Amino acid sequence: MMMKTEKIDLMEKFGRFNDHYHPRIVAEVNGQQAKIAKFKGAFIWHTHEHEDELFMVIKGTLKLEFRDKTVTLTQNQMYAVPRGIEHRPVAEEEVWALMFEPATTINTGNAEGDLTRDSLDWI
Amino acid sequence: MMMKTEKIDLMEKFGRFNDHYHPRIVAEVNGQQAKIAKFKGAFIWHTHEHEDELFMVIKGTLKLEFRDKTVTLTQNQMYAVPRGIEHRPVAEEEVWALMFEPATTINTGNAEGDLTRDSLDWI
Repeated sequence: MMMKTEKIDLMEKFGRFNDHYHPRIVAEVNGQQAKIAKFKGAFIWHTHEHEDELFMVIKGTLKLEFRDKTVTLTQNQMYAVPRGIEHRPVAEEEVWALMFEPATTINTGNAEGDLTRDSLDWI
Repeated sequence: MMMKTEKIDLMEKFGRFNDHYHPRIVAEVNGQQAKIAKFKGAFIWHTHEHEDELFMVIKGTLKLEFRDKTVTLTQNQMYAVPRGIEHRPVAEEEVWALMFEPATTINTGNAEGDLTRDSLDWI
């Protein structure tokens, strides 16, 4: 397992990139990773078959769409998406998000394609 | 595994209690829990032998003391404490903190005593 024992300043790290739906790893504990990403626009509908995913909004307003409901999250609000549940993040304006999920999680889940990031970098 | 599929508003949940060093569970994903607590004063020196622990400050200034250094965290800053590393949180003024760790983690680690919370409640 990779661990970094240094202070992790999320705002400083968000300041280092500007692309969207490209997660970066900021921490790893117990085989789970904390990742940050900027979202803008609609992502794709996807499912993680074996991994739950926790979203936390650091800045902006995130709509987490499900087939039966939409959950709107703002700063310091979270939502735990259970494995197997289809979801789609939508950000009308740019959102800064923190995610917690297993190190093995692929961003697009079962919907691999152009938006898939196979190998994530630490930031 | 216990999962709640509802929006988790951290500030609203912090508003529901005032005691210190008494973590409450707010989310569980992949056997890991997100917990919130208010810290004030110095906690005890302790170690988690088998669990890494990720701290994130939501409000205030937290000093994470180690035997060889002190890390000071403010809002939106995190630190991953590796398993086996002795540490002590110190909050000169009240701190609101978010932690990520296995559901099995005991707050006082190897230093069980008066401050130990054997069974945590969800909030």
